[in-house]
Amino acid sequence: MSSDLDLARTFKEVWAELSGIGRAPDGGYLRFAWSPAEVALRDWFRAQAAARGMPVINDGNGNLFATWSADSAGPGGVLTGSHFDSVPHGGAFDGPLGIVSAFLAVDLLRELGFQPVRPITVAAFAEEEGSRFGVACLGSRLLTGAIDPARAAALTDRDGLALGDVFGAAPAGARPDLVGAFDAYVELHVEQGRALTQPVGVASAIWPHGRWRFDVAGEGNHAGTTLMSDRRDPMLTYAFTVLAANKEARLRDAHATVGRVEVTPNATNAIPSAVRGWLDARAADEATLAGLVEAVAKKATERAGRDGTAIRFTAESTTGEVRFDEGLAARLATLLGDVPILPTGAGHDAGVLSAHLPTAMLFVRNPTGVSHAPAESATDEDCAAGVRALARVLQELSSRPLVDHDEGVAGHE
Amino acid sequence: MSSDLDLARTFKEVWAELSGIGRAPDGGYLRFAWSPAEVALRDWFRAQAAARGMPVINDGNGNLFATWSADSAGPGGVLTGSHFDSVPHGGAFDGPLGIVSAFLAVDLLRELGFQPVRPITVAAFAEEEGSRFGVACLGSRLLTGAIDPARAAALTDRDGLALGDVFGAAPAGARPDLVGAFDAYVELHVEQGRALTQPVGVASAIWPHGRWRFDVAGEGNHAGTTLMSDRRDPMLTYAFTVLAANKEARLRDAHATVGRVEVTPNATNAIPSAVRGWLDARAADEATLAGLVEAVAKKATERAGRDGTAIRFTAESTTGEVRFDEGLAARLATLLGDVPILPTGAGHDAGVLSAHLPTAMLFVRNPTGVSHAPAESATDEDCAAGVRALARVLQELSSRPLVDHDEGVAGHE
Repeated sequence: MSSDLDLARTFKEVWAELSGIGRAPDGGYLRFAWSPAEVALRDWFRAQAAARGMPVINDGNGNLFATWSADSAGPGGVLTGSHFDSVPHGGAFDGPLGIVSAFLAVDLLRELGFQPVRPITVAAFAEEEGSRFGVACLGSRLLTGAIDPARAAALTDRDGLALGDVFGAAPAGARPDLVGAFDAYVELHVEQGRALTQPVGVASAIWPHGRWRFDVAGEGNHAGTTLMSDRRDPMLTYAFTVLAANKEARLRDAHATVGRVEVTPNATNAIPSAVRGWLDARAADEATLAGLVEAVAKKATERAGRDGTAIRFTAESTTGEVRFDEGLAARLATLLGDVPILPTGAGHDAGVLSAHLPTAMLFVRNPTGVSHAPAESATDEDCAAGVRALARVLQELSSRPLVDHDEGVAGHE
Repeated sequence: MSSDLDLARTFKEVWAELSGIGRAPDGGYLRFAWSPAEVALRDWFRAQAAARGMPVINDGNGNLFATWSADSAGPGGVLTGSHFDSVPHGGAFDGPLGIVSAFLAVDLLRELGFQPVRPITVAAFAEEEGSRFGVACLGSRLLTGAIDPARAAALTDRDGLALGDVFGAAPAGARPDLVGAFDAYVELHVEQGRALTQPVGVASAIWPHGRWRFDVAGEGNHAGTTLMSDRRDPMLTYAFTVLAANKEARLRDAHATVGRVEVTPNATNAIPSAVRGWLDARAADEATLAGLVEAVAKKATERAGRDGTAIRFTAESTTGEVRFDEGLAARLATLLGDVPILPTGAGHDAGVLSAHLPTAMLFVRNPTGVSHAPAESATDEDCAAGVRALARVLQELSSRPLVDHDEGVAGHE
């Protein structure tokens, strides 16, 4: 079987096929769902599947499934994969690493002569980041019925184009036939903080989190001639809200970020008439998250009163706490050599699917601790360890009865 | 001669010709310099001039001059006019009112049988707002040599297009031949606050003012997984700077506004890597303005230290205090029936030209006090009063020797 060195080299070669797709001059990626870059990655997915004799279907929600099965059945068995889409100027690993690792894990299992009793299906989920249509994990939410397809069809991107127009029809929505065909979902993902200090870990939980849009309405006016006392400047209320969110999150050991803003008209010499911001908030438990958002909204509303503006908070997407299957996590951590089990503040399709299937996540170490930015990273060696770990997990979960793992994919310890 | 009622009706008709050009659904205007909307207004200018037998020249800097003279000489004599370009979603009156009023004042003088001893020239200045290329009063600065034409040619708009590319060449730059041909400049403009409580007033001064871009550099990262204590979030420094600018301006009876911001990457679930804001600051005197900007920069820099970010302030355009010719202002105020003389916080081409010519401004009342926004307004009756006042001023300044004003355009008292 492949040595660790060979596997790292293979990973590097395959990875290089993707590295130029959708890359901006700053090294970050612009791979928005159904953009030319993301479509090129989908084409790459189909080519990889074809090269391995794995038939591909699209579930009518933009999610792709490629299946390796003994009897050429449709998607089913153990599901693995991730997503291709990125945040604007995002890193290379968030998403694509899970898909590339899945195909390489299939190769590794075949090299071992492994024949799955149950199928192994590789997925590419659509619009996981929500960077285009504003709802994170849109593909897996549609697949599982967590979002109404008519509502999804009406979502618009920054150019005003609706998802329904991109599809040419409404998405298919819930596919219980498909979801019911899977035994388990395992998503491999780059770790996104500095919490993992060895090559591979297993996820315990995803913090509850959500996105709240806040709209501040004021009065547009001339920056030069309007007395300070006559102003109703929504930028002041916005700025206060940014600082309040930061303070309230720190008080609760939670996370709050305002990373996106839109200003009308956004001119140097005009007091804005309106400012729209987006609050991303996450906490270890749902009560803390609710308390955080409530405190920010209360303080912002008080400030709006003083600024002569009006502020309104709207939840755009919220996700309750996800606790991954504890038995499965413990079993996989043991299988992989007692690797650490750790929570994450990042949302994933695995969080959506965990309401329907036994679900687990594998993390690969990120030495910079940076994610959603060009500095996101993982070494070829750690990525190879991730492939090997994923192969071992797929072997475990697609074998019935369970094989003797000591003869399996044991190379990386 | 035209009655007040007729003149208001005429104004309303001519004004209606422009009202649909570049209007956005919110009622505001998108008339950026050399955009299709602004070019349509330039075409309207040429048609108006042609209908009155006034030859038009372009000074090589994008400024248009239409001249009424006894001997078909080129531009010279008394200069009047304003600009067509708007801030994004700006009001209808800021700029175009001065040009429309100039042509209607010419009509009124002709109706009176007035023959100017010196020519009367109507100007449409380019890029007064600086909304496209970032430098306010760009056309008049080029004309008077206040900005280097090579620097101007290199200015880029939000799409990265350079002014030199729009022109197809560098602008002509200083035209002392033209500037020297004018005796005086009188710009009629809608008042932009609530300072004028009768139809027409005369300007005393323009507050010193400027635009400072501030660039905050941080570290892009994941909004969900990055510990608050690990962040270097430039949005926090930006927000603090917005609030500090407001506070420092209030302490000094000055004006400070942050109306424009650009965020990289501007994604909900990403801590920005960089935030760029623009500070518009104005004060009654230059020492106060300098103290204001210095205090904001000092506080913002301290905050950047605490946020782990870096902030840099760059002056993009600054204008010292303009005191219009006091004798001329007093003479015109008396001529118009002891109308008020008042300062303004808004910059104008008149401020640039005042360094080279005796310059005056007439203001027309703005009942909403709003400017640079759709609610900017002036009644047809007040605009007619403005036309009549401008006609009387042009008659005064283009007569040599001075005519007896009691027989002139006295209708509006």
